[in-house]
Amino acid sequence: MAAVIAEQSEGHTIRTVIDALRARLGDRISTGRAIREQHGSTLTWLPNQPPDAVAFPQATREIVDIVNLCAAHAVPIIPFGAGTSLEGHLNAPHGGLSLDLSRMNKILAVHHEDLDCVVEAGVTRGKLNEHLRDTGLFFPVDPGADATLGGMAATRASGTNAVRYGTMGDVVLNLTAVMADGSVVRTARRARKSSAGYDLTRLLIGSEGTLGIITELTLRLYGIPETVLSAVCTFDTIQGACDATIAAIQLGLGLARVELLDAVQIKACNAHSKLDLRPAPTLFVEFHGTPASAREQVDTFAGIVSENGGGDYQWAEHAEDRNALWAARHDAYWAARTYRPGAEAIATDVCVPISRLAECVIETQADIAELGMVAPIVGHIGDGNFHVLPLVDMDNEQEVKAAHGFLDRLVARALAMDGTCTGEHGVGTGKKKYMEAEHGPGVEVMRAIKKTLDPHNIFNPGKVV
Amino acid sequence: MAAVIAEQSEGHTIRTVIDALRARLGDRISTGRAIREQHGSTLTWLPNQPPDAVAFPQATREIVDIVNLCAAHAVPIIPFGAGTSLEGHLNAPHGGLSLDLSRMNKILAVHHEDLDCVVEAGVTRGKLNEHLRDTGLFFPVDPGADATLGGMAATRASGTNAVRYGTMGDVVLNLTAVMADGSVVRTARRARKSSAGYDLTRLLIGSEGTLGIITELTLRLYGIPETVLSAVCTFDTIQGACDATIAAIQLGLGLARVELLDAVQIKACNAHSKLDLRPAPTLFVEFHGTPASAREQVDTFAGIVSENGGGDYQWAEHAEDRNALWAARHDAYWAARTYRPGAEAIATDVCVPISRLAECVIETQADIAELGMVAPIVGHIGDGNFHVLPLVDMDNEQEVKAAHGFLDRLVARALAMDGTCTGEHGVGTGKKKYMEAEHGPGVEVMRAIKKTLDPHNIFNPGKVV
Repeated sequence: MAAVIAEQSEGHTIRTVIDALRARLGDRISTGRAIREQHGSTLTWLPNQPPDAVAFPQATREIVDIVNLCAAHAVPIIPFGAGTSLEGHLNAPHGGLSLDLSRMNKILAVHHEDLDCVVEAGVTRGKLNEHLRDTGLFFPVDPGADATLGGMAATRASGTNAVRYGTMGDVVLNLTAVMADGSVVRTARRARKSSAGYDLTRLLIGSEGTLGIITELTLRLYGIPETVLSAVCTFDTIQGACDATIAAIQLGLGLARVELLDAVQIKACNAHSKLDLRPAPTLFVEFHGTPASAREQVDTFAGIVSENGGGDYQWAEHAEDRNALWAARHDAYWAARTYRPGAEAIATDVCVPISRLAECVIETQADIAELGMVAPIVGHIGDGNFHVLPLVDMDNEQEVKAAHGFLDRLVARALAMDGTCTGEHGVGTGKKKYMEAEHGPGVEVMRAIKKTLDPHNIFNPGKVV
Repeated sequence: MAAVIAEQSEGHTIRTVIDALRARLGDRISTGRAIREQHGSTLTWLPNQPPDAVAFPQATREIVDIVNLCAAHAVPIIPFGAGTSLEGHLNAPHGGLSLDLSRMNKILAVHHEDLDCVVEAGVTRGKLNEHLRDTGLFFPVDPGADATLGGMAATRASGTNAVRYGTMGDVVLNLTAVMADGSVVRTARRARKSSAGYDLTRLLIGSEGTLGIITELTLRLYGIPETVLSAVCTFDTIQGACDATIAAIQLGLGLARVELLDAVQIKACNAHSKLDLRPAPTLFVEFHGTPASAREQVDTFAGIVSENGGGDYQWAEHAEDRNALWAARHDAYWAARTYRPGAEAIATDVCVPISRLAECVIETQADIAELGMVAPIVGHIGDGNFHVLPLVDMDNEQEVKAAHGFLDRLVARALAMDGTCTGEHGVGTGKKKYMEAEHGPGVEVMRAIKKTLDPHNIFNPGKVV
């Protein structure tokens, strides 16, 4: 790559690359408008910016060839998993190639004794758990969408049960990645831990395709708990719900999930799922354990709830009853999205220390009220992480402007509480503007790493830093 | 730093730096021979390589000044915590300044509701836990030695209860570090999770002082378990002990510690601590939970042990009884070190997937037997991590050579099983030669990062990569 000088992805350059890739990939490269647009915008409110072409590699070695070719012509590459990210990670502001990894969907190994598995990056978490169904094992990270595991690693995804099982930053043992110079790096061995050198695994997790293209992952698995109990309870105040959660965590109660829905979100769920829940801050909780220990947890939590002003405590054991109890939570996202017909949902998230969570949510609700906005809130409350879903008429300029102001204040509020501008959605293009405020001189360190590992800026340019 | 050209740390250069530092630090810089030698070699069998001087900074801003001065004169800086590392991390092969952080020992904050604390890098884990004693919280990572928390982060330390609470890579929420250009980076916020940019926290953890100087840390804390139960049992074979452990982990039993001592180590313990234990592979296990759940765990494990050929199952609840039961484990390190009078202990460790652990230990024991060497083995068996402590007469050239061959074969064996050359000791100078074999092209990525973040190679030069 020595002699390559960064050039614009101009018409003739990209055509050269597409022609060469067609010779290599046959019909596994497409320039059709529909497919490009499908790859240029995802579950995000940011405008569509389609790539010039979409390639469907089937093996790491093909990706090496693609990277070498694109590097030689300074054509951007944007890795694409299931297209479920929310901050414009997949937009192609500089054109280039969308690298759709969905055909790299083989589960390569399951090691029962080691509680791990090796998968290609295009395997979705749903497919993995289906494959594991009869083994007594499962993969815990659950961001809601049926994302690919490569995409989940690239965005450091987490979700409802991170409070117990951690985020993608905790469950990936190693990654295989194609770097910008075409080298293939396996970031670590399959041992559970290592002190041998810099943690390249964690460097790539959350790098959003800007440092390397993840092609394989070794993931930790967990035994399916013998007993799962679900509980639901309501509170008069957000503070009460947060205090109950803090008390449970301090006691080491081992909550597997603890989700907060605010009153607006409950109303949205009532409307969407024909429910009749009291429109009040509501906790949805899950306990994992042996029959005795799970029962002990659910009883202890009942006491904590009532000490913190909660009520209507219900719990269930059998899958059907649990699903009924959690129905509102399961449908929360789509209930929120459709709560204001004709409006677009601007999905965002922040994360703060749990001691500041109630304050952060309450101030955010006040901001929403002042704007007269409709914006349900759902929190992974055990992590201090919450989502706000402003429902905005995108044709109404004033509403859009007000929503942008709201997002800026939400992030400023989280940062002032020693929180982060995103707990699990990632930076993409949507949150890039907050990186200086959050990281200060750390951004320069990130830029230096980006520059040295991708000197021609071909990997997902314009994202993160 | 633009105009600085890397120069040798020559006599006049280092004198200039020492004079300037004396003006800045007063008597908090020392060039005395004893103190330099104390800082040039630690609990390691590698020869002493003392620095030119030892500085004792008291604040991050002083370290900024020191870094700027050393950078301007290309003088190496070697951060020093408690001096308990094992692979020559602290040797000064190019001379320079040892930066002893032991006076940065303030506990800056304990956030009870968030289960975290903020400490200066020179605080030891012992001091932190003493400080926390009346809070109901504790910091779990326990590498044996009373290391500083900065040093533990720098070497990605872990220890006996990593199987439950993770390693330093799992419990650090953020770090403050002085970078080679004098900038002060706080790697993340205090939120439990974040997807905002590259994971600089994890990049610095395990970087052994080669990328930045850690000056402060925010650490996760845990509630002290209501009940702690300890158990001990013996097996006729290493395989049986490993199989029992695997079965317990698969069942999600939540072992807090699970330690394997081999027959030789038990003999050493008997000799050192005047015990009368059966010289056989022995497991030392600890369970944390509520009274009911801990009791349930200890009973379940009893069944697993007997199914896997184990016996002599004993358990205890009260602290005094637990200490008596675990006495051999507590004294294992010093028992091993003194088992062969006059010999030096070469402490080393590797880590493999747990399914390969028995095979790896058995082959290693066979190698030891063939060499006629004395080398007790202690394993953090739940992680697949084990220590071997060859006891070598360092005046006997043949023995030393044989030991080196043994270490090379041990690492090769671990790598062949998809393991790592070090689970928790780190690379330092001792294991640098294995990095290519373990990481392949990943080493080039590490070198590129080192070069861009420390272009004049002043931070702990000659270590890791």
